[in-house]
Amino acid sequence: MVKVDLSGASMFFQNMGPDYAEVAAAHRTLAEGSGLGAEFTGWLELPQNIKSGELKQILALAKRVRARSQALVVVGIGGSYLGARAAVDLLRPTRGTDDPDIIFVGNGLSPDSMMDTLSRLGDKDFDLCVISKSGTTLEPALAFRMFKGLLVSKYGAAEAKKRITVVTDANRGVLHDMAVREGWETFVVPDNVGGRFSVLSAVGLVPIAVAGIDVQTVIDCAIDEFRALDLRSPENPAWQYAGARQHLYHNGRSIEILASYEPSFRFFAEWWKQLYGESEGKNGIGIFPASVEFTADLHSMGQFVQDGPRTLFESVVSFEQDLHQFEVPFDMGDPDGLNYLASRQLGDVCRTAMAAVKQAHIDGGVPNIGISVPRRDEAGFASLVCFFELACALSGYVSGVNPFDQPGVEAYKKNMFRMLGKPGAQ
Amino acid sequence: MVKVDLSGASMFFQNMGPDYAEVAAAHRTLAEGSGLGAEFTGWLELPQNIKSGELKQILALAKRVRARSQALVVVGIGGSYLGARAAVDLLRPTRGTDDPDIIFVGNGLSPDSMMDTLSRLGDKDFDLCVISKSGTTLEPALAFRMFKGLLVSKYGAAEAKKRITVVTDANRGVLHDMAVREGWETFVVPDNVGGRFSVLSAVGLVPIAVAGIDVQTVIDCAIDEFRALDLRSPENPAWQYAGARQHLYHNGRSIEILASYEPSFRFFAEWWKQLYGESEGKNGIGIFPASVEFTADLHSMGQFVQDGPRTLFESVVSFEQDLHQFEVPFDMGDPDGLNYLASRQLGDVCRTAMAAVKQAHIDGGVPNIGISVPRRDEAGFASLVCFFELACALSGYVSGVNPFDQPGVEAYKKNMFRMLGKPGAQ
Repeated sequence: MVKVDLSGASMFFQNMGPDYAEVAAAHRTLAEGSGLGAEFTGWLELPQNIKSGELKQILALAKRVRARSQALVVVGIGGSYLGARAAVDLLRPTRGTDDPDIIFVGNGLSPDSMMDTLSRLGDKDFDLCVISKSGTTLEPALAFRMFKGLLVSKYGAAEAKKRITVVTDANRGVLHDMAVREGWETFVVPDNVGGRFSVLSAVGLVPIAVAGIDVQTVIDCAIDEFRALDLRSPENPAWQYAGARQHLYHNGRSIEILASYEPSFRFFAEWWKQLYGESEGKNGIGIFPASVEFTADLHSMGQFVQDGPRTLFESVVSFEQDLHQFEVPFDMGDPDGLNYLASRQLGDVCRTAMAAVKQAHIDGGVPNIGISVPRRDEAGFASLVCFFELACALSGYVSGVNPFDQPGVEAYKKNMFRMLGKPGAQ
Repeated sequence: MVKVDLSGASMFFQNMGPDYAEVAAAHRTLAEGSGLGAEFTGWLELPQNIKSGELKQILALAKRVRARSQALVVVGIGGSYLGARAAVDLLRPTRGTDDPDIIFVGNGLSPDSMMDTLSRLGDKDFDLCVISKSGTTLEPALAFRMFKGLLVSKYGAAEAKKRITVVTDANRGVLHDMAVREGWETFVVPDNVGGRFSVLSAVGLVPIAVAGIDVQTVIDCAIDEFRALDLRSPENPAWQYAGARQHLYHNGRSIEILASYEPSFRFFAEWWKQLYGESEGKNGIGIFPASVEFTADLHSMGQFVQDGPRTLFESVVSFEQDLHQFEVPFDMGDPDGLNYLASRQLGDVCRTAMAAVKQAHIDGGVPNIGISVPRRDEAGFASLVCFFELACALSGYVSGVNPFDQPGVEAYKKNMFRMLGKPGAQ
């Protein structure tokens, strides 16, 4: 279960602090399906639905791919990319010997990056998984065309067919139609879930399962976490986080820095940026979502955080228990003066640094919200996903926007298709 | 040479636009050494000095390490880390078969990350390079102690001694004293250059050279670039960038997003964040530096950029020529509707996307500054480094701060050493 600690933020609250009545109303609106974008709140039921449905099919596919391939090339962008990448980087920062390399493509247009990907793939046996609701988004569509060609030239058309998996709309769209025609194995992007809320559907679970992460546990824990987070009370950590950040925003804190002391958290923070930036950044309002990796970035962004404009607050995600233990070694003669730490656990030194940073930033005028889960494992990942999704919906409703649409994303696409001369684009 | 394009920003300028008289005064102050922090402006002469001095020694070391090791473990944090990481990731995103793996450590305290690093290192033959002005910064000092122990247990004390390289103060400090006592090969962190401006000293060049990057070319191009950037005129791209961003800041643009369409640019952006965040974020002022990877993040942060608060501007770094070419393949039957792009170069599609995004963001109210170099190579890297460093100094002087100090970085360290019980810490 996620814990939120507002002890480093409450001294910055004005008047009565976070308005939990507003958060309660938002929660009611969400649960009743009476708010803006209610048709896209299916993510609340994803874990149950997947468990009773396609989870077995996902596990079977993962087993097959892991047996025959050393790489899975995953084609996707935005919500069809960041959730799986977040999970794989966080939980499998180094691959086990039996784990295939999960290579994410179709999230850019750089030819140099395409070449880098091809060298990384080398002559590995691979499967191809394409994730796209419509099949018409340019980046993944182009990448799919290119890697499909590679697959066919490597294995021939018949074998290639068995190595392609599609996650797309259940009934329509270019990709859906291709999959039906070709007989590719298919999973569904649910209609009532937006991309950035889809990591616990097949969109995220297929690559996550192939990476060797225990998706059964992820789903079981997500079911428990959503149940716990249904609590209608200011004790609910999602209420605390949503309430505190909206309160701070209305008191001049326009930038939120998501920090973690785990380098493997980097792409979870990217997933979080999409979740919050795309849900709340509209109609001329929204908290700007940024991220840092501590302690590294204390030596880069630390100066700004400590002494720059007082428009920031920071939310620090931590894991209570380390997965590995390292003792600071004793060094005869103490040449570097570190023997005062000898035989201390590195993890304890890290937690001391966290406490020191929290105090320094509070003293410097930066509110600090603590967010923690027990371990950096399947359960911790599931808990963080459910927590951030629910808090995002509540926070968006409190701020008065539709947290489930993204009208601004179309602007560049329209220009681009016109400039590329796409048939039918005006 | 760097080119700056203000055509996407000028429509947002107020009154007379950027105040180039202020930038000219800042440039004069910098050149005369009469401004705040003038004792830390040695970075302007680094390329000449290194060329006439230790470049040969760096090249000889790189040759030796490349011949005997499959990995170089580089210990450093902040300015002793990000410059080299930026260069290696940008120019060697995939290693050649003869290139050692450059593994950066000592930039955090996570034990789980330490374990990941040890698995990545595996049983590779390795050299160890430690970069620290004082030797007392906790993260690198701890990592050096641990990896020095590993090196000794792998090779024995005598051979380990030959595999350690130190980049530190010329005359004093814990690390300097250890190096003298042990006889480790040593390079110098210059006294008149702050960490974030040190990438063109041994601090950056040692790991960069070992990675297989042509540091001779980097230095030659940097000499040329600094000479060209000495131009005292609004034609100077560094004047344009410094002037435009300060002008935008004073008109309500408090967040700068550095964007690139090359995924390999990610850590260059991290280097840039330190350079600008640490130089300008003080005394309660400063532009908040953030970064995005396009087109990926158009599908995450794109909504916020297009429709969120109009407090942003974006600076887009691009490379005019691609290093690799990919043609969009023709697909019989056009199942995905992409044949209208068949036989077009992926790089051209990417440049069209760039133009489309620029127009969409301008239409959405986001000023766009273009920054380009010819290629993603040694020359391009050197040009960008010189350009961003000079513009940072000018921009800092225009904003009235000392761009060369970082007083806020000490706050958490003081707390931490006290809480850890370091002898002498109060």
